[in-house]
Order: sequence, then structure tokens, then C-alpha cells
Amino acid sequence: MTSLHDTSVRGFASDNYSGIHPEVLAAITAANDGHQTAYGSDVYTARLQELVAGHFGSGAEAFPVFNGTGANVTALQSMLPRWGAVIAASTAHINVDEGGAPERVGGIKILNVPTDDGKLTTALIDREAWGWGDEHRAQPLVVSITQSTELGTLYTPDELRTIADHVHARGMRLHMDGARIANAAAALGVPLSAITRDVGVDVLSFGGTKNGAMIGEAIIVLDPAASEGLTYLRKLNMQLSSKMRFVSAQLVALLENDLWRRNAEHANGMAQRLRAAVEAGIADGSVRGVEFTQPTQANGVFAVLPAGVADRLRESFRFYDWGPADGGSEDRASDASSGGGEDESRREVRWMCSFDTSASDVDAFVAELARLTTAA
Amino acid sequence: MTSLHDTSVRGFASDNYSGIHPEVLAAITAANDGHQTAYGSDVYTARLQELVAGHFGSGAEAFPVFNGTGANVTALQSMLPRWGAVIAASTAHINVDEGGAPERVGGIKILNVPTDDGKLTTALIDREAWGWGDEHRAQPLVVSITQSTELGTLYTPDELRTIADHVHARGMRLHMDGARIANAAAALGVPLSAITRDVGVDVLSFGGTKNGAMIGEAIIVLDPAASEGLTYLRKLNMQLSSKMRFVSAQLVALLENDLWRRNAEHANGMAQRLRAAVEAGIADGSVRGVEFTQPTQANGVFAVLPAGVADRLRESFRFYDWGPADGGSEDRASDASSGGGEDESRREVRWMCSFDTSASDVDAFVAELARLTTAA
Amino acid sequence: MTSLHDTSVRGFASDNYSGIHPEVLAAITAANDGHQTAYGSDVYTARLQELVAGHFGSGAEAFPVFNGTGANVTALQSMLPRWGAVIAASTAHINVDEGGAPERVGGIKILNVPTDDGKLTTALIDREAWGWGDEHRAQPLVVSITQSTELGTLYTPDELRTIADHVHARGMRLHMDGARIANAAAALGVPLSAITRDVGVDVLSFGGTKNGAMIGEAIIVLDPAASEGLTYLRKLNMQLSSKMRFVSAQLVALLENDLWRRNAEHANGMAQRLRAAVEAGIADGSVRGVEFTQPTQANGVFAVLPAGVADRLRESFRFYDWGPADGGSEDRASDASSGGGEDESRREVRWMCSFDTSASDVDAFVAELARLTTAA
Amino acid sequence: MTSLHDTSVRGFASDNYSGIHPEVLAAITAANDGHQTAYGSDVYTARLQELVAGHFGSGAEAFPVFNGTGANVTALQSMLPRWGAVIAASTAHINVDEGGAPERVGGIKILNVPTDDGKLTTALIDREAWGWGDEHRAQPLVVSITQSTELGTLYTPDELRTIADHVHARGMRLHMDGARIANAAAALGVPLSAITRDVGVDVLSFGGTKNGAMIGEAIIVLDPAASEGLTYLRKLNMQLSSKMRFVSAQLVALLENDLWRRNAEHANGMAQRLRAAVEAGIADGSVRGVEFTQPTQANGVFAVLPAGVADRLRESFRFYDWGPADGGSEDRASDASSGGGEDESRREVRWMCSFDTSASDVDAFVAELARLTTAA
Repeated sequence: MTSLHDTSVRGFASDNYSGIHPEVLAAITAANDGHQTAYGSDVYTARLQELVAGHFGSGAEAFPVFNGTGANVTALQSMLPRWGAVIAASTAHINVDEGGAPERVGGIKILNVPTDDGKLTTALIDREAWGWGDEHRAQPLVVSITQSTELGTLYTPDELRTIADHVHARGMRLHMDGARIANAAAALGVPLSAITRDVGVDVLSFGGTKNGAMIGEAIIVLDPAASEGLTYLRKLNMQLSSKMRFVSAQLVALLENDLWRRNAEHANGMAQRLRAAVEAGIADGSVRGVEFTQPTQANGVFAVLPAGVADRLRESFRFYDWGPADGGSEDRASDASSGGGEDESRREVRWMCSFDTSASDVDAFVAELARLTTAA
Repeated sequence: MTSLHDTSVRGFASDNYSGIHPEVLAAITAANDGHQTAYGSDVYTARLQELVAGHFGSGAEAFPVFNGTGANVTALQSMLPRWGAVIAASTAHINVDEGGAPERVGGIKILNVPTDDGKLTTALIDREAWGWGDEHRAQPLVVSITQSTELGTLYTPDELRTIADHVHARGMRLHMDGARIANAAAALGVPLSAITRDVGVDVLSFGGTKNGAMIGEAIIVLDPAASEGLTYLRKLNMQLSSKMRFVSAQLVALLENDLWRRNAEHANGMAQRLRAAVEAGIADGSVRGVEFTQPTQANGVFAVLPAGVADRLRESFRFYDWGPADGGSEDRASDASSGGGEDESRREVRWMCSFDTSASDVDAFVAELARLTTAA
Repeated sequence: MTSLHDTSVRGFASDNYSGIHPEVLAAITAANDGHQTAYGSDVYTARLQELVAGHFGSGAEAFPVFNGTGANVTALQSMLPRWGAVIAASTAHINVDEGGAPERVGGIKILNVPTDDGKLTTALIDREAWGWGDEHRAQPLVVSITQSTELGTLYTPDELRTIADHVHARGMRLHMDGARIANAAAALGVPLSAITRDVGVDVLSFGGTKNGAMIGEAIIVLDPAASEGLTYLRKLNMQLSSKMRFVSAQLVALLENDLWRRNAEHANGMAQRLRAAVEAGIADGSVRGVEFTQPTQANGVFAVLPAGVADRLRESFRFYDWGPADGGSEDRASDASSGGGEDESRREVRWMCSFDTSASDVDAFVAELARLTTAA
Repeated sequence: MTSLHDTSVRGFASDNYSGIHPEVLAAITAANDGHQTAYGSDVYTARLQELVAGHFGSGAEAFPVFNGTGANVTALQSMLPRWGAVIAASTAHINVDEGGAPERVGGIKILNVPTDDGKLTTALIDREAWGWGDEHRAQPLVVSITQSTELGTLYTPDELRTIADHVHARGMRLHMDGARIANAAAALGVPLSAITRDVGVDVLSFGGTKNGAMIGEAIIVLDPAASEGLTYLRKLNMQLSSKMRFVSAQLVALLENDLWRRNAEHANGMAQRLRAAVEAGIADGSVRGVEFTQPTQANGVFAVLPAGVADRLRESFRFYDWGPADGGSEDRASDASSGGGEDESRREVRWMCSFDTSASDVDAFVAELARLTTAA
């Protein structure tokens, strides 16, 4: 098979529009040939466990899975009895972008709390952290936070520690959706453990795909007392890869030689470059009418554009409208023209940078944005 | 990352112990670089749809998923109301090897029927095909068969047509678990359509992984009236790949240039070589005490060995014990020594050939078998 | 067995603290003796169907079930595909008081919207009515409203018609949780059909228990096109009574001779008496510091009391604290002293009247409230 | 409401075709009037707990529920992790008569084993008791037996003890479906504890409905270590009665004054009378062509009739055909004429006696059977 697409075209729609980082692809190739025991008893999965112990501390255990929804739902099930509920931000991927999998497959009620910036606080958690022992209420026993958040914001290590202590003091457990944990750690300039195990996260959904893998995430259990039955749950949730060596090899490639950090730093840096360039344009008048709606702390930039600009800009670069006024969503297939509804008001958009976003991609994008916002 | 394993070692444990066929890996590489829309709106998935229409007939639609359990459970859900049940052979993968996923994730009751050879017949189906309209009985609305079966046997096109007609006449639908559909079509010397759409199969779980892919299966809907909601079910069953181009590219590689058939013919041929060599050994006395328990129609060989031989043979070549006396199972991690229970009786074993099994692998294996069964 | 409790003690905790209305008990007795076919093929269930057709219109079909949660979850499942979601007020019983049954048993995501008074509006519905066709979003295909609401408020027929038209115009269906539908119809002075079928409700959970039954609710399908498979779903949701004649006989008793209306009018009237007496007390100074938080439109009165009064009042009469500041809940077992947390602020309380609440119960209650709120 | 049916007509279809025993109805009446706390904090439920402790031993705890399916599924969920499976006879109610509720609501795989008489043995259990630790196999962690069985047979205390020891030695737990536990204890002439707690049953589904209650069963936990979360599971499985005092009062009536035993002894005695009369008829030639298929150990009689007799006999007395040749089923609505299929072979039938079956009912039935089987 030959390539069927223009491999030089990149956009700002999502970090999962990108492909496989060359080092990850090389790792897949290196793991190929010969036979390895299926379902995880292979040397690449063993190597992954060593690396996970190195990055997250001795005793941390990884369960490679296929995708983020699989990681989140399976992790949460392992942390909850059948009558358990999860407290999460209303913008959380588990709440808005997983097609009801937590509820239907996991049987889990999500007690969601609106936030301004995608981040829970102890006060926000307490809005739903009550009713233990009352059989009429699905029992809130896990809090799930996303790092970096779906709105491109970050929890600091101190914020995480405060949340973890609060959660644990109430007898609950803390799950982190780390689909972009690499971006967070890179942005904060800390090791992975500093925003997970060291601050009290119990179970982590570790994201590989958006960081340069092809297919590969892992549930990483940081406190074994917080999770039960993952071996079985992964299988029955249809997340057990037979040729697991190839999932593990991808994650090994990311965790070895700090590829995870290099990729994340690059993506974050491109987002900073984009933001800085737009801000400079606003300052010097070359960009008009653009307002940012969130701080740019990881690899996503959120903004509001003048009416009509988004669709024209998308003729050259793909990116997402960011859901309805009160929502917003990670996985909306809304990078196409949004049609006639645009004219009534300005819409929020998301621009996402990836490990393969280039400086020239950013510069061309900002130039076009400038052109469109200043056209008569 | 460098290779961590001996890439020259192969065994007979399972066709999912093998790696990625070079043409499949090349397809992954060809699909890399640049951006493609996530979740299936990419050119490789579009190309896959064309190939599927070519192999299975116009109107056939493919939904790429991660693994076989995901394909089966999601396919069956799309074919059944919440109160539906599936009739299957007791040896079916969905019944014995999916960790209860059909029941827990799918909510589906499996009405299983014992068979000698892994194959349902109309008479066997009718043992459970009754009770429609009775709310006390989970409603048998789908029959699921496996081709080639978990016991290495095949349905002929005529047998399939008879079953499909019978099933349809009773208002039921026919699902095929085609984890090894390629082996079946290759062994029968027919196109894929000849044992699926042409004979009345409604929905197919098309297997790529055991045929040389890394991660990649597809639900293929042959009769659109038999399946509903797969777009949603695939997502909520956590089987939707974000970078789907790479799953699709693998399946494209298999379906283009008849790689599926070349791989399957090779694996089948190696199984025939193995069987013929052992039979010759039995005939000339160089192999003693081995009996075959199933015909060798695809890529698996099932046999009973003299006491103690299996464990010693496994010192050189991995393969599976085949479950308990009354069961047997595809995915048992039982290719290790089975311990002290061996001495009480001879055990059934399974020897599986793959696309990468070599003639010298087979010859060395049979030589060792001969040595062990004739040692004093 | 003799009575083990003081049958003269009544409180204001919930209309399900009351017992069986004598006419309902007489109906159970009348249905007794001799044999009747189990599971619904009995003459009492047949009679119920006639009455339902009379009250709700020809073609309306009743499925008797055990309890309100069973009615709601089963009704919603029958209205939704596996990928469906329900839009409901955040105060809805299905959202806060069913222990996660809609999610875990039904597999249904609830898209909940905060309200001031427990009532959805078209604007509130539209906050979650979007995303059809997007597989990442559980599909909002049913709107569920409660009549009378969990906050004792009512939808007028016009409001219901507006909601139903809006819901239907968007391709969704309308479910009504009618645990207190009798109170609503009685308060509005209209037939049951006027707030259900005539205004576009598709499926109704009809409440008997809070209206004077012992155990008995029914799912009533008003538009057969809106519901599928209830025969099977009722059984597999464990809501199929073997001796169904007795569930049906209770509902027959309520629907015959307008017992449902007599009971509801009485309960509503007692709530009005209570409210009026407290308001009169406030006006003349005999009651101090009490504020009402909702209008009293059915049989519940919601108020805020001066600090410390609730617990002392509960020494004589049971009633509920009304959940946390931001929540509130139907079935909290919180009619006991709430302990030391009371002093920090005033708490909302709910006073519920039942078919058996007497005028003297109300008068004694208000007298005690007056005494406690005016004590030095 | 007046009685709508002929209260003098009784048949032999099922013990749930009968009504409410007068003492049970009196108990409902005694529990009426005044207010009692909903959801189980009432004096009748407290009294039930005392009686359960008396009958089953100190520490035994009862959770009243609505029906047998609810009791079984909820009990089994409380005994199993999400990845658990239950070993049961293929004739078990949970396997054939609960509409797939164990699978869909419970998420539980049933590993069923064919039996001749509805009774498991240690050898039969061991056919499915394997595969622990293997994630591909739903984990067999509970064995469920029915006492008396769906085929009217009994386990002796010694048989139960042998099974319980065997089950426990393998790390599994023992559940008993006691829909007819009263009939079993009465037939064996032992206390309820002698066939439950004393012999190692861990959790019991205690049946009230078939023993003379209107609606009322209970999950009785005999070993608290074997069950977790029933408070929550009962609610989320929609089995929590708001006016629970009336469910509990029924069970109190059965357990007080040994009404359970009197009712069961009567029903059993009527079955013995029926069997003896038919056997006498066979012996003296007044009944021809009838063969019994099971011993009559409780209140059910299973027989095969000459072709055509069943339908003619049913013109006077209702009873069940007993499923297909290889099946059989408790709750089939098959007490009507089975149509044209009858002539091809003789069919098995079930004749069930109840607490209200009279000697004259039996005598008239046998007389008609004699007449029909001896008619030219």
C-alpha cells in the first residue's frame, strides 16, 4: 500500500489528527518478528512495567489498553463498587465525550459540577461529595480530574495535593484522566510522578496516543489498594490486546529517552508560539477581534473569533468549534464548516498543537488569521 | 528502542503469538505523517470501505475495531434488542474466551449447545431456538457461528447456506465470528463473499490480527437491515480508534493484493504439513501414541499425546493444552507446563500455525515429537 | 399477627409513610381466593386495561410494576436505544433518588439541567438537546419531566403542550414521572388525560403507592410508537409480579370511582391548609421566622425554618430536611434529627401531606411550629 | 371493587396462581393505618429480622424484595465481583426463566450444567469449576442451587453439606434459590436452618409468594462475609419497597406460628395425594398410559401423558406443559392448549399443588384423568 494522503498537510484540529512519531514506529518495528506470548506475557510489556516503576515509583503497575475511553471506564470500574459514582467536572471527557460508556458499560453515575476552567476544586467537589450510606444516592467514591484539562488548563502540584488530601479525607479515591499528562508534566517542568503519585493520585489513565503513539494508553495503578480486578476488567471491557507487545513497545518508546517530554514540550511550545503571535498581532493591530477564553498552559489555545472568520480560516486549516455556549467538547467532529448558525454570534474555537506541529504551520496560521480578521 | 526478544523463535501456541506481516507494517508506515481526521473520516478508512465492498459486495459496510471480543460483542449488540439472546456452540469464543463480556458489557444471554466439532447444525440450533414471545425467556434472535471454528474445522458454503436459511426462516439473524475467516476461505478455495454474504451471513466479525495485522478487526455489516446503531455502539463499547487510519491501513493491506489469502494459505499449508508429517510418522512408527481429535481443515491441529510428552515438547516449542476434558478454549494462557496434573491422563493439545510459521519450524517440531514419543 | 405500631401516629415526612387506603385494601381482598393466571393474564389486569383506556384514551396500555424506580427505568429503556440519553431536571427523582439505577440497570446517561422550581422549560431542555449523530455524545432522545415535581410544583397543561411540541419537533420523546400525577390532576382540576395524552406525553410512570396503594405503579404507554419491548423489559428488569392480579386490583381501586382524585384532593387540601395556617401565623405574628421556598401547588410544602426549630419540631412530627443547599432529594432518610450541623444555618424542610393526613394533624403541627418559633 | 373472578376455581398450573393466605392478608391489614418510616425502618421489618434470626440463626439478615428474580439477581450480584460467574443446573430458574436478567441486569455469566433431576452434584459442579485466575474466563465464584428444585426434587441435608464443603474448599460461595424452601423443609421435616445455614448455604433467596404471600420474598444473608452492598444493590436493582412494612408483615405472618410449614405441608401433601391416586389408578387400570418422570418430593408432580390427553384435561384444570424435550421451564405461560404439535409425541406436564389446593380438587382431577386416559 502506498500513501493515500498528502503527508505535508497539518492542522490544529486535534493532537489525534497527527500520526505516529518516528521513534514510536521504530519501536513497533523493533518488537516485530518472531513469536511472543499473547495478552501481555511478553518482554515489551515487562520492559514497560520497569519504566513505569521508574517514572511513577516502585509498585506502580501498568495495564496497557487500546484507547482513552477504555482506560477511563476500566480504571473507574476497578475503583468503584457497582453502586459507586464519580464526581467530575462537567467538561470532563468521561462526561461529555465517551458516548455514555461510563454509564452503559461501566454502570457508573457521573456527578458532574460546572467549572469555569475545567478544574475541580475542593469546594466544587463538595457540591456532590455527600450522601454516603444513603441507598437512594449513587455513592460518590471517586473523584476524577483531567490533567491537562479539556480546556487546556493545568493543575499545579499543590492544587493536586490539596484535592487528593481532601478526597482521601472523605474516604474517596482520586482518578486522573491523563490523556495529556505528558503535556502537563512538560509544561510544569516536573517528572510524571510529581503530578501523580507524589501528590496522591490513586489511579491514572496514561495517554500515549495524543503524545505520538499509534494506538496505546495504559491504566497505571499508583495505589494498589485503590483498584481491584483490572486483569479481569480489562478483558471483559474488551481492552485486552492479543499482540500486546506492540502496544507496550509504543509506550516504552515514549517513556524511554524522555520522548514523552520532548513531544509534549514541542506541542506546548507551538501553542505558546501561536498564542504569543496572536497576542502580538492584537497588540499591533494586525489581528483584530480575537479574544482568548482560557490561559494557554498546555498545547491547546481557546479563543473567540469575529463572526464568519472561523469558517474562512478553516478553508486553510482545520480546527474545532468548541461545542455549544455552555458546553464544549473534546471529540466533536466539528472541524468542518458549521453552516449558517455562525452569523448570529461569535463562536469559541479550539486550536490544538501536536508533536508534529511546525513553527511554520503556526506562522502561516497566524498570518491567515491576521489577514481574515483585518479584511474589510 | 531495540529489539528485546529473539526474533527467530516461533512456536505453535497461537496465531496471535506472531507479529506483523511486513506488508502490513509497510502500510502503517505509508499511512503515517501529516494529519488525518480522527475517528474514521480519513482516506484509509474510505479505501477500506471500497475494498470491503469489493470483497463482500456493494453495500457491505466495515466498522474497524480493536479486537475480536470488541467486534463480536458490538456486532451482536447491534443485531439484538436488550432482551435478545444468542445461540452458539458451547465451544464458541464468545461463550468461553471473552471473560463474560457478552453478558456483562453486551447484556446478552448466550444459549450454548454442545457440539463434537465446534460446528452448529440446524438440529443443534433448534435445541435452543424456541420460546419467542415468552417474556420469561431471553429471546433467541441471533445465531452465531465461527468460521473456521475454534476446533480448526470448517463449514462448507452449503452448510452455511442451510444454516442461514434455517435461521432466517425462524426470524433470527446470523452472525459469523470470522477471527479466522481468511483461513476458512483460503482452505475452501473460495472468495470471502462465498462463505459470508453469498450464503446469508448477516454480520461478520472480520479478523485481521491472526492474519498478520498488529491490531485490527472489523465488523462488516452484510445486511444493513440486520444491524442498528453501530456508529454509536462502537464508541460506547470503547472500540473507536482515534487514529483510525492506522487500523484501516492494516486491513487495507490485508485485503489488497490478496495478502489475506496468501497469509492464510501459508498458515493452513503449514498445518497440513505438520499433520501429514505426524501421520507419516505414525504410519512408519517414528511417532508413537499420538491421536488426532479433529480433522485439520484450517490452521490448527488438535491431538492427544502420550502422558508426559506435552511438557517435554514444550521445552522446545510453545503450544496450548486444550482446556479441561469437557471444554477447551482459545485463549487460555496454558502454553506453560501444566504441572502435576498431567500424569493422570493424556491431554488434548492444540498446535497452531501462523503466516510466519516456516517449513523448518514444522519439521523440527515433528522431529522432536518423534524423538519424545519413541524415547524409552 | 397483630399490629405492632401506634396506628394513630402520622407525620409529614412523605406520602409513602402512609398505609393502604381502605378501598384499596378491600380491592386486594376482593381479588383474593381461587386461582388466576400469573404474570398478568388475569381478569383484574384486564379490568385495569379498560380503566386505563377510559382515563387515558383508547390504545393506552398499562404495564403494572412494583415501584416508581422500576417504572421509570423500564419506561425509559423502552423509549431509548442503548446509546440514548435522557434530559431531566437536576432535581428529578431519576437523577438524585434512584441509586444510579437509570445508569447501572438502564445504561442510560442523564443529561441534567438545574432549575429553580423543578420544572424544565424549552430553553432549559435546549441546553442539552444537541449533538444528534455525534457518536461521542450519548444521544438525547427522551426528555423526562415530573408532574407534580419533586418540589411540589405543577406544570400547567399549556406548559406541557409547549414542552411536548418542542420535544417532538426535535425528534425526541416525552416521558412523565407521574409518581404524584394524581395530585397534579386533582390540583389542576382536570382529568388525567388532560396532562398526559392530550398534551403529548408519550409514556407515563403512573404512581399508585403515594396515592394510597400498598405496592403498585404502572407504566402507561400513551403513544405505542414511542415504546418498544415493555413485555420483555419488565420481566428482565425484575418488575413482573407473579400474582399480578393484586397489583392490578390496587390500581383498579384507585382508578374506579375516582378514588385517585379523592385521595389526591384530600392530600393537596391538607397541604393548602398547612400553608395557609402558617401564612396566617406569620401575618399575625404567631409564627416567626418561617419562609416558604416554593409555591404550594400539590401536596408538599417547602420552607426554611429558624435555626434549631426543625429538630425540636421533629420531636413531635416527622418530616424531611431537604438535602444540601444545592440539591434536595425525595427519598432521603433524613427525617431524624440532623445533629450538630443545624446551628450553622437555617435548613430547608419539606412537609408532605397524604391521603390520610387529618385536619387535626395539620392544626396540631402548626400550633407546635408556632410555639417553637415564638419561644424566647 | 368487587370480585371479578370465580373464587372457587383452582387448578394445578402453579403455586403462584393461588392467592393470599388469610393469615397473610390479616397481617397486611394489621400493619395498616398510621405512618411508618418508608424503605425498611419500620417495626414490621424489625420484627422480621427477629424472626429471621430465630429461624436461621443469630446474625442472619433479611433484605425484603419484591420477587424471586429480584431476590436471585440481587443476591448473586452481592456475592460476585463484576467478573464473576455462577455455576447452576441448566434447569435453574436463573438460567431459563428470568428473561436474561442475571446477564443483562446482573452482568453475570451463568455456567450451566445439564442434570437429570435438577440437582447439582460435586462432579457436576466441577465440570465448570475451573479457570480461576484466567482473565479469558468469567470467574466461577458462586454455585447456585434450588431447593426444592424446579423439577420437584429435594437435596437432603447431607447432600447440601457435601456441596457446600466442596464449594467452599474451592473458594466459591453457595447461593440457594429458595423460592420453595418452605416446601423443602416441610418435606424433609426439618427446620429452615437445617437446609440452609447449618449446612453451609451462604446466601438464600427466601420465597414467600409461592408459600401464600401476595408479594414478598427476602434475600437472607447467612454468612455476612459472603455478601456485600445489599443495601445499595437492592435499591439500584429496583427492589426496594417504599411501604416495606407490608412486604415484611407478609413474611412475618409466614414465619410466625409456622404458617410457612403448615402451608408447605399442605401443598406437599396434596401432591402426594395426587401422585398416590394416579399410581393407584395405574395399578388398578383406571388410569392408563401415564408415566412419572421425577419423584414427587415436594409440591410438584411431573408426568408424561398419552397423546391428546393433556389438552382435553386442561379443559377442566389448568396445568403446564413442561417445555421442550430437552428443557422445561418454571414460568412458561403454557397452561393453554398447545395446539397442533401435540400429536407427534407425548409431552411432559407439570402438576403443581398449592397451599389452597383441596383434597376434592385432587380427587376430581384424578377422576378426570382416569376418564380421559381410559376413554376408547
